[in-house]
Amino acid sequence: MPFYDIHPRDAQETHARNFAVASWESLGHHEQAAAIHAAGFLNAGDPVAISFWIISISMIASTVFFLMEAFVVETAWKTSIHIGSLVTLVAAVHYLYMREYWVQFAQSPIVYRYIDWSITVPLQMIEFYLILSAVNPNLSGGIFWRLSVGTVMMLAFGYAGESGMMNAWLGFCLGMLGWFFILAEVFVGEAAKCAVAADKPNRHIKSAYNTMRLIVTVGWSIYPLGYFFGYLLRQWGDSPCNATYNLADFVNKIAFCL
Amino acid sequence: MPFYDIHPRDAQETHARNFAVASWESLGHHEQAAAIHAAGFLNAGDPVAISFWIISISMIASTVFFLMEAFVVETAWKTSIHIGSLVTLVAAVHYLYMREYWVQFAQSPIVYRYIDWSITVPLQMIEFYLILSAVNPNLSGGIFWRLSVGTVMMLAFGYAGESGMMNAWLGFCLGMLGWFFILAEVFVGEAAKCAVAADKPNRHIKSAYNTMRLIVTVGWSIYPLGYFFGYLLRQWGDSPCNATYNLADFVNKIAFCL
Amino acid sequence: MPFYDIHPRDAQETHARNFAVASWESLGHHEQAAAIHAAGFLNAGDPVAISFWIISISMIASTVFFLMEAFVVETAWKTSIHIGSLVTLVAAVHYLYMREYWVQFAQSPIVYRYIDWSITVPLQMIEFYLILSAVNPNLSGGIFWRLSVGTVMMLAFGYAGESGMMNAWLGFCLGMLGWFFILAEVFVGEAAKCAVAADKPNRHIKSAYNTMRLIVTVGWSIYPLGYFFGYLLRQWGDSPCNATYNLADFVNKIAFCL
Amino acid sequence: MPFYDIHPRDAQETHARNFAVASWESLGHHEQAAAIHAAGFLNAGDPVAISFWIISISMIASTVFFLMEAFVVETAWKTSIHIGSLVTLVAAVHYLYMREYWVQFAQSPIVYRYIDWSITVPLQMIEFYLILSAVNPNLSGGIFWRLSVGTVMMLAFGYAGESGMMNAWLGFCLGMLGWFFILAEVFVGEAAKCAVAADKPNRHIKSAYNTMRLIVTVGWSIYPLGYFFGYLLRQWGDSPCNATYNLADFVNKIAFCL
Amino acid sequence: MPFYDIHPRDAQETHARNFAVASWESLGHHEQAAAIHAAGFLNAGDPVAISFWIISISMIASTVFFLMEAFVVETAWKTSIHIGSLVTLVAAVHYLYMREYWVQFAQSPIVYRYIDWSITVPLQMIEFYLILSAVNPNLSGGIFWRLSVGTVMMLAFGYAGESGMMNAWLGFCLGMLGWFFILAEVFVGEAAKCAVAADKPNRHIKSAYNTMRLIVTVGWSIYPLGYFFGYLLRQWGDSPCNATYNLADFVNKIAFCL
Repeated sequence: MPFYDIHPRDAQETHARNFAVASWESLGHHEQAAAIHAAGFLNAGDPVAISFWIISISMIASTVFFLMEAFVVETAWKTSIHIGSLVTLVAAVHYLYMREYWVQFAQSPIVYRYIDWSITVPLQMIEFYLILSAVNPNLSGGIFWRLSVGTVMMLAFGYAGESGMMNAWLGFCLGMLGWFFILAEVFVGEAAKCAVAADKPNRHIKSAYNTMRLIVTVGWSIYPLGYFFGYLLRQWGDSPCNATYNLADFVNKIAFCL
Repeated sequence: MPFYDIHPRDAQETHARNFAVASWESLGHHEQAAAIHAAGFLNAGDPVAISFWIISISMIASTVFFLMEAFVVETAWKTSIHIGSLVTLVAAVHYLYMREYWVQFAQSPIVYRYIDWSITVPLQMIEFYLILSAVNPNLSGGIFWRLSVGTVMMLAFGYAGESGMMNAWLGFCLGMLGWFFILAEVFVGEAAKCAVAADKPNRHIKSAYNTMRLIVTVGWSIYPLGYFFGYLLRQWGDSPCNATYNLADFVNKIAFCL
Repeated sequence: MPFYDIHPRDAQETHARNFAVASWESLGHHEQAAAIHAAGFLNAGDPVAISFWIISISMIASTVFFLMEAFVVETAWKTSIHIGSLVTLVAAVHYLYMREYWVQFAQSPIVYRYIDWSITVPLQMIEFYLILSAVNPNLSGGIFWRLSVGTVMMLAFGYAGESGMMNAWLGFCLGMLGWFFILAEVFVGEAAKCAVAADKPNRHIKSAYNTMRLIVTVGWSIYPLGYFFGYLLRQWGDSPCNATYNLADFVNKIAFCL
Repeated sequence: MPFYDIHPRDAQETHARNFAVASWESLGHHEQAAAIHAAGFLNAGDPVAISFWIISISMIASTVFFLMEAFVVETAWKTSIHIGSLVTLVAAVHYLYMREYWVQFAQSPIVYRYIDWSITVPLQMIEFYLILSAVNPNLSGGIFWRLSVGTVMMLAFGYAGESGMMNAWLGFCLGMLGWFFILAEVFVGEAAKCAVAADKPNRHIKSAYNTMRLIVTVGWSIYPLGYFFGYLLRQWGDSPCNATYNLADFVNKIAFCL
Repeated sequence: MPFYDIHPRDAQETHARNFAVASWESLGHHEQAAAIHAAGFLNAGDPVAISFWIISISMIASTVFFLMEAFVVETAWKTSIHIGSLVTLVAAVHYLYMREYWVQFAQSPIVYRYIDWSITVPLQMIEFYLILSAVNPNLSGGIFWRLSVGTVMMLAFGYAGESGMMNAWLGFCLGMLGWFFILAEVFVGEAAKCAVAADKPNRHIKSAYNTMRLIVTVGWSIYPLGYFFGYLLRQWGDSPCNATYNLADFVNKIAFCL
């Protein structure tokens, strides 16, 4: 079947073509699927591509939602929501590229994923710090720097390990150290003490803080799990963790508005 | 007629070409229609493509309308309208892809349709829940989860049936169960009791609730009808039901603003 | 002259090429015009394409203007202006496609034009009805339905006639009936009575009503004239009427804001 | 050097290629410049293309700036700024096309330039009239029509002359007449009297009026100069005059906001 | 391996292909990397391209952030933030082009970089002047012109030197003179005196002034360093300096909002 038969001129020819294709069974389906694929459309049999698609669209929708909701919430929360919308905006752009990369090469788009994280994770740290300083205005800048150091370690060693610049196990361990550093700060360090102090002034901020802590602990735990278990079946491991992360992010931001 | 004759250099040549084409009757028209088709333009003889087009443009227009109207309505309704605009935004993006898919392959874009539904239907459930909690602030979270379970069942089994992963009849029946589950919740369950209670506090919310119930019942009934009757003539069955759904959605949202 | 000579490497070569082209007189100009045309640029000798261009840009500019002006006007008029901006937005999108269609095939883009009208004309009817209900809050819904019936008749029979599904004269007559039906409603029917009643409450609404009546009568009269006289020279007849319609629409909306 | 060597696979190959190209001197540079040109990028040796680029980006930035500033200024000035933003929006769109046209064909994009002017010059006349009616609310509509007649004459004869439909000298003289007509209205006609009257009520409007008069006189004087001197070296004459016009427009609008 | 094998039809074929590619070692990787490169995706082994990417996305995100934050801050600061958003908007557009240029030709996009600077540096000077006039309302216009002269000198000679129109050392020295001229104005000239006077009226403006002075001194010092040391390894020298500049810009603008 020559390629241009894929473009029939009217409904009758379409049905004739579809019938012919259907009767050629496996081969015909293969050809048509390849044509659909070549035209850049999603393949129904590629759940990872579908998950990339859903996440990219959700990110776009979230960005629009946060930008609009920022007009509704109290002034004090607007900057937080703007930063939240930047996180989803940056993620949306990168997911669009990752989706195309996946559809064209069926390979894990490591470069784009880490570029995405290198912008969105610090933005989330800034948002985290903004919430903490809302709790305790004379917060020491040291928290911000300690969180940043943990973030940079986590991302840099993760990338070095995954892209093969460094021994994968060493990169994993050093990246985990960065994450534990953040968790220590958040649960037993100065940030945690702030949160305790915050119990009195404002229930809302406390709840926002807890949600973010949950994301950092539970949501982010999926990344090392993906890294650990995902070396053979990484393509499958990547997407659900991003879907979960995305969902966590989405729920957290809606919790702000309600 | 070689392909590049389709691009004449001036009006005289155009008329000459058109005259020639017109006198070649069926063949000439075929060639020109194929060239128009190949350039990605709509085919006048393809009503389904035209319906895809109209819906995609209407969705874009609705998104702009809701986003702008959100600045006009009372603060209490803004979040609802923002979610409504997300529904139309997500639908707009998917309809654009579905339209291209249809124009290029003249096949039902099942994957895109279900991806669309997997994002927009939960968003509508969230909107539904937001209206209910506006009625009754101490609403149990259980309603939300029951509605979600029904939604997921409805979509998952529908997709499994339509994409051939599961026996079509079994998928249909299980998907119907999910829908009946939602209807039961909405008409005789806790949600329905909320609506009765709402009679007193606020006539507007009651009316919004009734409109949404109508959509869930009458609007959504078109999907199983399409699934049921549409297996042979599915391409025709799909589009009017979406048009109706779109219209219902449009009317409902405008009813909010008036 | 081979095609790639159209892309000279520096200004000297450009001038040399231009001189050469200029001395080849008609042939050279033909070649260059064809290359410009093939690259999708406007042809200076095609006034219809230029009119499509001007209208599409004006529609985009109007959309931006109405969306921004909606933040300025009183809340009561915002929804009307939003609907007005949807009309221009939808028209802008369709004119962009019609322009490309014309530039590529030098044919009247009947399908796009009627799709455009099938969305924008009902939107204008809604706007018309919104103004009338601003005049007279207990307006019967019957006006809305009578206006809709007239609109649908006008468009459906017009399309059937122009696309050759129906005898052109019969389609013309039935479409005219739809338009007369609207005019009767607007000048001697219930809508007209509303307008008389409106004389007292609000001078602004009265003026808006009169402007819209003028558009429906004078502006829309160009369409049947184009249909009637334009069968041979339709390509010329189409564009000025749209330009006039566009201008009328533009003026009317600005009249709202002043 | 075959074309695809332009795309080396890593930094080493790049340097090798660059070295090779550099040692081929003039020919190598020619080839690479042609490849860069063919990919649609700007040529460092084409100052006119660079000026088109700068103007198009500035127009986009101005549009965003005016649309945002419109939220800041007093309500009375918002409509003026919206119209100002339309001027830059329409100019931005046309400059993008003119830039592409220039880069591809290295010819003066006369058609696009006059289409641009046919939309933006009337918009500026409307803005001019809006400022005048802010000065003197019972301004006669006659000014508007006289300004319009002058504008249309100026543009129509200019285009007829430049595109070769009419004797170039005759078109020039008649177009100049249109401009003098506007200047007469602005300096000694009814508009001028308005401005004198405006001295008392509002210093701001007076200053806006003077800025616009300066633009119409000094800024617009560059067009006939370009037309007059630019017939041989028109490509050079066009761009600086637009740059100046753009700068004048930019300064004028910023003067509104300060 | 023929090119289209890059597009396998299902996951099994993908794995087979990947395995084959992996076993071909260096050659296979070369081919696949070339295909990824040809499709316009980032190359994991090209840190400069990655830095261009990160900066372009950050610029887009900053633009959105500033435009949204402008709705939050006090009216007095809105115009400053709007100009700040123009700086990032213009930079975003140019970085997108520079990124594509780099990815396609692996050459320093000198033309785009200087066009970018020729728009954004004057915009920053305007912002600088706006802050100074907020400090001291009867500021002489002379400061603005002296800053402009320094800016133009710095950019014009820098470009002349880097693009080879002028002796590189001479261009460097004259460009440095322009920069020293600005620094003199800012530290010991009239602008500096304004800043001292500003100590009393407003601590915020003083801090904004100091931040901008720091950018002009420390941030801008990277450009001559890049020019000086970067002639051999310029491609590496360019990007970090832009990254730093971008970071400085970002921090400065956030400092405004806090």
